[in-house]
Amino acid sequence: MRNICVYQEFLTELHKAQIRETAERLGFAPHFFALDRFEEAKTCLQNCEVLYAHSPDLLRAAPVSLKWYCCSYAGVDPYCKDPSLFANPDCLLTNSNCYGVTIAEHVVMVLLMLLRRMPEYEAVVRNRGWSSQLPIRSIRDNEFTILGTGDIGSNVAERLRLLGAAKITGLSRSGQAREGFDEALPISRLDETLPQTRNLIMALPSTPETRHILNRARIALLPPGAYVVNVGRGTAIQQEPLAEALNAGRLGGAALDVTEPEPLPPDHPLWGARNILITPHVSGNMTLGYTCDRNVELFCRDLENYAAGRPLNGLVDRARGY
Amino acid sequence: MRNICVYQEFLTELHKAQIRETAERLGFAPHFFALDRFEEAKTCLQNCEVLYAHSPDLLRAAPVSLKWYCCSYAGVDPYCKDPSLFANPDCLLTNSNCYGVTIAEHVVMVLLMLLRRMPEYEAVVRNRGWSSQLPIRSIRDNEFTILGTGDIGSNVAERLRLLGAAKITGLSRSGQAREGFDEALPISRLDETLPQTRNLIMALPSTPETRHILNRARIALLPPGAYVVNVGRGTAIQQEPLAEALNAGRLGGAALDVTEPEPLPPDHPLWGARNILITPHVSGNMTLGYTCDRNVELFCRDLENYAAGRPLNGLVDRARGY
Repeated sequence: MRNICVYQEFLTELHKAQIRETAERLGFAPHFFALDRFEEAKTCLQNCEVLYAHSPDLLRAAPVSLKWYCCSYAGVDPYCKDPSLFANPDCLLTNSNCYGVTIAEHVVMVLLMLLRRMPEYEAVVRNRGWSSQLPIRSIRDNEFTILGTGDIGSNVAERLRLLGAAKITGLSRSGQAREGFDEALPISRLDETLPQTRNLIMALPSTPETRHILNRARIALLPPGAYVVNVGRGTAIQQEPLAEALNAGRLGGAALDVTEPEPLPPDHPLWGARNILITPHVSGNMTLGYTCDRNVELFCRDLENYAAGRPLNGLVDRARGY
Repeated sequence: MRNICVYQEFLTELHKAQIRETAERLGFAPHFFALDRFEEAKTCLQNCEVLYAHSPDLLRAAPVSLKWYCCSYAGVDPYCKDPSLFANPDCLLTNSNCYGVTIAEHVVMVLLMLLRRMPEYEAVVRNRGWSSQLPIRSIRDNEFTILGTGDIGSNVAERLRLLGAAKITGLSRSGQAREGFDEALPISRLDETLPQTRNLIMALPSTPETRHILNRARIALLPPGAYVVNVGRGTAIQQEPLAEALNAGRLGGAALDVTEPEPLPPDHPLWGARNILITPHVSGNMTLGYTCDRNVELFCRDLENYAAGRPLNGLVDRARGY
C-alpha cells in the first residue's frame, strides 16, 4: 500500500470514512492525525507519498519521496514563496477551491453593510442614539468590478447577479471570459476600469504581481464614494493611502477581511479609519459543513486523478504562485 | 378637472411629469407641495378628492369630500387606529408595496451578520483585537420562517431561495400558498412552527392581532440559538423577554429595525442586550431610486384603477388594519 498522511482538525468520522474508502479502492492507506499529534504525523510522513494538511512545519519535515502536498487552504503563498519547504523540488502542490460559497456570503454581507451605511448607523446606535435615513445604495441595479475570477470571484459574481446587479466586470491575468461575468478583462486594463468602479471586490492570490496592485495611484483613480472589499490577501492593497482616502472622505468605505500584517498591530492607521469594516481573516470560515464536505470531496477527486496519472484539478503553478 | 393634492418630498421632476401625464390623461389636475409647504397644501386639499402623502396631520385637515388617501408608506397603523383622522368615513386608504426589495436587502444583511457572528467579531475589532474563527452558519442549506407573506416577506423569501436556502416557511393570516415559499401556514399554527424555527423573520403589520405576537411564551418555544429579525412593527415583539432570552444566551441573536417605542429610550433593556443589532427604522429606506420610482408607479397604476372605478391594488381594510 502507498501511504497518505492526513493532518487535519476539521474531519468528521464520515469524512474519514469517505477518504478511507476512496484511498483503499485506489491502493492507498490513509493515516489520520489531529493537530495535537504533530510528532506522530511527522514520523508517519517519512513513509508517505501524499500529505493532506495545512502546515508549513510538517511539510518542511517531509522526505524527498513526498510527491503531492494537498493543501486544504485556498491561499498557498507561504508555500510558493519558500521553495525550501519542499525536499522534493518536483512535489505537486494543490490548493482547495472550497471557500467560494462562504466567502461570497461574507462579501454580500459587507457590501450591503457599506452600501447601507451600517458603520455610520452602528456608531449612532452604539451611543443609544437614533438617526434619520441616510442616502443608501443597493446591490440591485448597481455595478461591480471583481479582481480575481476564480472560485471566490465567481461565487461572488453569481450572488450579485441573483440579487439584481446591473453589471459585473471580472478582471484576471488572462482576461478569459467566465460564466457569471458581464465583461471579462485582463488585469492589464485595470487602470482604465477603476474610474468607472463604484464597488471594487478584490479576491486575488498573493503573488509578486498582485503585491500592492491597489496602490496609491490606483486608489486615486477610483471615483469619489467608491467602496473597496478585500477577501484575497492583505498584500494586494497599499494600506496607508487607503486609510488616507477613507479619512479624507474620498472613498465611501472599505471592508477588509485580510490585512498586512495579520493581526494588524494596535497602532496601525487602518484601525479607526472612516467607514472601515475590519474582520480578522474569517470570511473563508472552515466551520461550515458544506465547506468541509467540499474540501474532502475535492481531495478525494484529485486522489482519483493522482492515482490515474491525470492532471490534478487543484494544481498550483509554484512559480506563478496560484 | 378633479383635483389631486400631492404632498411629498422625494419626487423628482421626472416623477412629477409622470404623475401629471397620468393624471391629466384621466381628467385630474395634480398639485405638488414639498413638506415645507404644509399650509398651502392644506388650503389646496379643500378642493381635492385624492391625497397622495404620508401625513396624519394633513389628512386630519382633509374635507369630507376626500375620497382616496394614497399613503406612500407601507405601515398604515396610525391611520387604521384613529378613524377620527378621516372626515369621510368611507374614504379609501391605500398603502405602498414599494419597500420589499430594499427591506429584503436589509434582511439578507442582518441575517448574514447574525449567522456569521458579526456582533462578536465587531466587539473584538472595536478594541483593535484579533480573533480566531467562531463557528458560523450560512444562508445556504439553512431553514427560515417568515411571519408575513406580503410584499416584504415575499421579497425576503425570493432572495433567501436564490442564496441557497433549504426551506422557507411562510405564515400569514390566511395561510394561502404564495410563490417563493416551500410551505405556507396560517398564523394559527405559529406555536407548532416555532420549535423548528432557527431563523425567524418578522414582517407583519401592526394590528390588534399582531401585537406582542412574539410574546414571552412563544420566545420560549424557539430552539436554543435561534435568531430573530424584525422589520415589521416593534409592537409585534414583547421586548423585555426578548432581551432576557438574549442575555441568558438562550437565543443566538436578534436584529430589530423596529422597536416600541421609537426612538428607543436610552435606559431601555434592549440596548446592550447580547448579540443584538438595532437599526433606527431605516430598512425601508426611501432614498433608493427604485423604491421611489415604484412608489410613483404604484400610485399612477391605482389612479388608473380609481378613475375607471376598479378596485385599488393597494387597498387597505381599515378595520383589519392592513
